[in-house]
Amino acid sequence: MSVLVVGSVAFDSLKTPYGEAPEILGGAASYFSVAASFFTQVNLVAVVGDDFGEAQSSVFKDRPIDTTGIERASGRTFRWSGEYTGDMSEAKTLDTQLNVFESFAPKIPKKYLESDFVFLANIHPTLQLQVRDQLPDAKLVGLDTMNYWINGTPDELRRTLARVDLLVINDKEARMLAGIDNLRRAAAEVRKMGPRWLVVKRGEFGACLFTDDSIFFVPGYPLEEVHDPTGAGDTFAGGLMGHLTCTGDVSDRNLRRALVYGSVMASFAVEEFGLARLLRLTLDEIAQRFSEFKAMTHFDV
Amino acid sequence: MSVLVVGSVAFDSLKTPYGEAPEILGGAASYFSVAASFFTQVNLVAVVGDDFGEAQSSVFKDRPIDTTGIERASGRTFRWSGEYTGDMSEAKTLDTQLNVFESFAPKIPKKYLESDFVFLANIHPTLQLQVRDQLPDAKLVGLDTMNYWINGTPDELRRTLARVDLLVINDKEARMLAGIDNLRRAAAEVRKMGPRWLVVKRGEFGACLFTDDSIFFVPGYPLEEVHDPTGAGDTFAGGLMGHLTCTGDVSDRNLRRALVYGSVMASFAVEEFGLARLLRLTLDEIAQRFSEFKAMTHFDV
Repeated sequence: MSVLVVGSVAFDSLKTPYGEAPEILGGAASYFSVAASFFTQVNLVAVVGDDFGEAQSSVFKDRPIDTTGIERASGRTFRWSGEYTGDMSEAKTLDTQLNVFESFAPKIPKKYLESDFVFLANIHPTLQLQVRDQLPDAKLVGLDTMNYWINGTPDELRRTLARVDLLVINDKEARMLAGIDNLRRAAAEVRKMGPRWLVVKRGEFGACLFTDDSIFFVPGYPLEEVHDPTGAGDTFAGGLMGHLTCTGDVSDRNLRRALVYGSVMASFAVEEFGLARLLRLTLDEIAQRFSEFKAMTHFDV
Repeated sequence: MSVLVVGSVAFDSLKTPYGEAPEILGGAASYFSVAASFFTQVNLVAVVGDDFGEAQSSVFKDRPIDTTGIERASGRTFRWSGEYTGDMSEAKTLDTQLNVFESFAPKIPKKYLESDFVFLANIHPTLQLQVRDQLPDAKLVGLDTMNYWINGTPDELRRTLARVDLLVINDKEARMLAGIDNLRRAAAEVRKMGPRWLVVKRGEFGACLFTDDSIFFVPGYPLEEVHDPTGAGDTFAGGLMGHLTCTGDVSDRNLRRALVYGSVMASFAVEEFGLARLLRLTLDEIAQRFSEFKAMTHFDV
């Protein structure tokens, strides 16, 4: 089993109340891949520039992450710079340089075409659809998107949504996409657009899963300190898809567990800057925090 | 077993996107009593004016709510008028007339002095302490308060907090009381002030319970429509204390169940204006929604 992810690999420059981190490895596909790699083989499709060196590549190569799909283009790697203040629920973007990411046209290596699970991280919906079309036999295709595409390319996004199984977005995006304020009704509307499963991320309040038969809630892990929220959502998706891939089980029961694994991974990611915490995470720590989630939510009937 | 509640009984005039309700029975003690009355005998201590008639009294008298403790003072009953707009998470107060509530000095009828469980709804902390002092043998004393007392009478509030077992407040109040933004650290700080158990209400995101050994989260019930949020917090406290009282069990395990019953009751309360939904609620509906909470939060390890 393996999971294919298509998305951004970037250099992030971050500022939070806990310090600064200039030019560290980031991007949705990076967080996703590292998180998912604790569960399964990852096939990574992205583009980087001339400045992407061995120090960065080795982060992936040291783990079960295949980098054949990382295209090296002439120019500089995508750069993003952001700052978090106050309750740190949203980043203020200081600078974005798309660089080689601007003309990203995902190329799927032949050996990736047998990936059972696919995650289309947040890129142009038309590119997402092109990737999806190349993987007609995937067991489950997951998608992330954002307000920029919801407002800017609604028709393209609708066409893509009609072709995916699982949508992972935050609560604001769900409401915006549906044009409905109430979360439960917004979720029903979004699910009519295509995705059988909808996962809504709610920041510190956790996440919920909407399926045909039920709604499932998982709380956010109550951390005493959040050092850097960057990549939390992508890490969540990586844990979620990683667990689904390694079990090969897309039952509602297992999707619930996948949501908890996503929450576990995201809760670790934000403890330190960038990928630092994930890169020294152990399977024991993951299992331990999974148990904590059970203990925090269980009650007897 | 019985639960004693001390707090406001009022006439509320409400406006929400779903309509208006002028001069309906409200007040923290009213919502609390009606909610708790589904679980146990309630002893109600409050003050009302000359304008409090049979129509209002019968709401209590038709249920296991003892009204001996409702003092009739000369003048008009407490009146509050509020409006909800947008996401309806907070009321805009249009008018407050304290009337007879201004000089409320709770008198505890002798037969109430054996109440095992006590809830001090949101009134001046010194009055809360006076009541608490009269019930030295209570098995559990719960307390509600608000920003007005946290900022206005911090010393009085501290003295009261030192004497209660369970504090039920919302997340903003918990942060304000502790002077700490992070919820987990704020909770630890608040618990040092006295209450062994802290329940933090988080509006549509549910509630959580902090004890010596654990944190427990219950989500908010995902309603498709919230018609009137008035009294949700007091109804929550009523369900919670009602369940504790009828079981007589203050173990962490049972406190968790109590939080879920509180959430169940609050989720019904907001479906209609004022007490309307609670007054036609059935035990079957309560049991059914309790099961839904289990189904919405359960996952297999």
